[in-house]
Amino acid sequence: MTAQLNPRGDVAVLVPAAGAGVRLGPGRPKALRLLGGDPLLVHTVRRVAAAPSVRFIVVAAPQADLSAVRELLDPVAPVIVVAGGATRQESVSVALDAVPEGPEIILVHDAARALTPPSLVESVAAAVRAGRGAVIPVLPVVDTVKEVSGEVVLRTVDRSALRIVQTPQGFRRPVLAAAHAAASDPLTDDAGLVEKQGVRVDWVPGSELAMKITRPFDLALAEYLLTGSSPGTIA
Amino acid sequence: MTAQLNPRGDVAVLVPAAGAGVRLGPGRPKALRLLGGDPLLVHTVRRVAAAPSVRFIVVAAPQADLSAVRELLDPVAPVIVVAGGATRQESVSVALDAVPEGPEIILVHDAARALTPPSLVESVAAAVRAGRGAVIPVLPVVDTVKEVSGEVVLRTVDRSALRIVQTPQGFRRPVLAAAHAAASDPLTDDAGLVEKQGVRVDWVPGSELAMKITRPFDLALAEYLLTGSSPGTIA
Repeated sequence: MTAQLNPRGDVAVLVPAAGAGVRLGPGRPKALRLLGGDPLLVHTVRRVAAAPSVRFIVVAAPQADLSAVRELLDPVAPVIVVAGGATRQESVSVALDAVPEGPEIILVHDAARALTPPSLVESVAAAVRAGRGAVIPVLPVVDTVKEVSGEVVLRTVDRSALRIVQTPQGFRRPVLAAAHAAASDPLTDDAGLVEKQGVRVDWVPGSELAMKITRPFDLALAEYLLTGSSPGTIA
Repeated sequence: MTAQLNPRGDVAVLVPAAGAGVRLGPGRPKALRLLGGDPLLVHTVRRVAAAPSVRFIVVAAPQADLSAVRELLDPVAPVIVVAGGATRQESVSVALDAVPEGPEIILVHDAARALTPPSLVESVAAAVRAGRGAVIPVLPVVDTVKEVSGEVVLRTVDRSALRIVQTPQGFRRPVLAAAHAAASDPLTDDAGLVEKQGVRVDWVPGSELAMKITRPFDLALAEYLLTGSSPGTIA
């Protein structure tokens, strides 16, 4: 029997978690770095599983850590764990292939966005459910941004039209499948592959809590948000 | 007698601190919000004053808070406090006019970058001293960035040439004076005014600690960095 959450849910969430995370320094694979005593992946899956629309979660783990990841997630939520590929995109493709029949809404979510609130999972899913082919959560760019070339600054960029992209990114199932079948570009996100297919991508407001934990600085911030006296918005 | 720090220093630092900081929510002017029990401005001035090259610090404060700010900074460092203008650019111009003869290197620094390490002040100043007309500290863009129009995503932006801009921004004195005399654009930073004059702007590596404290989320992060168990890089 396939591991599932809410049997009435119409959403499957793919979590590529096979990356090394070298920017966090040497040590475990990124998704298994500890945050408040638990691996990032546990935090991520716990919050995704708390979103009522989610029926399946598929985690793509490093081949060498497959059974460890299964054991780790077993007490957290019913999860399908598959071996990831050499790249993030391969891992997403493999995870997509492992989604059982049923859900027509597929979300792709970074394992390293450990504090993403369930409400963001729901709002992305809701936008796809409302008829969008592809939906990404975004935040405004608050910093001044410049374009450089070598040592020299070329110009100040108009940031008013720029947005920082987060995950989960949501797709109608055939849209994501077609994009992954057709395109390959390790430098872009899943929505970028969809853009290359000429499919319209929409956005919804993101969340500061959906920050990607990439550097030691981010991990320190996440520790604080998790345990500290911040304005209690952690789900 | 004019308040000065190191009499052999060749740098003056202007700190526009007259903004309301509405994004931090209602309350005091932004520069006077508390971080670890002290106003942001106190943290900022303390760190600037710890940079050995700095001879003068000129703070542009809200007219209504002039004497309060003088009293606040008196135990921190010798500082020249002037009344700021209606805009950040006016405040910078007023502060520039208040710099005594001597320093040919002028830095402009946001009061809200309270944890900026003295080493960053020095590295920006050193680049100007080495012959650059204008120097800004920058960080790479780590997030995926898209350009949007209304509800729709237009494209994925090539972030490899983009940099997030911080302060202190450093200038040869005549370069900054000419830019402020000639240009006016409330939407740009000081380096942006210099760019408009056709003057070359260079960059040096910024610091995560020089983050701008704009939103409650940033204040929470700064509280953590200041008091917490982070990798002890706070000067």
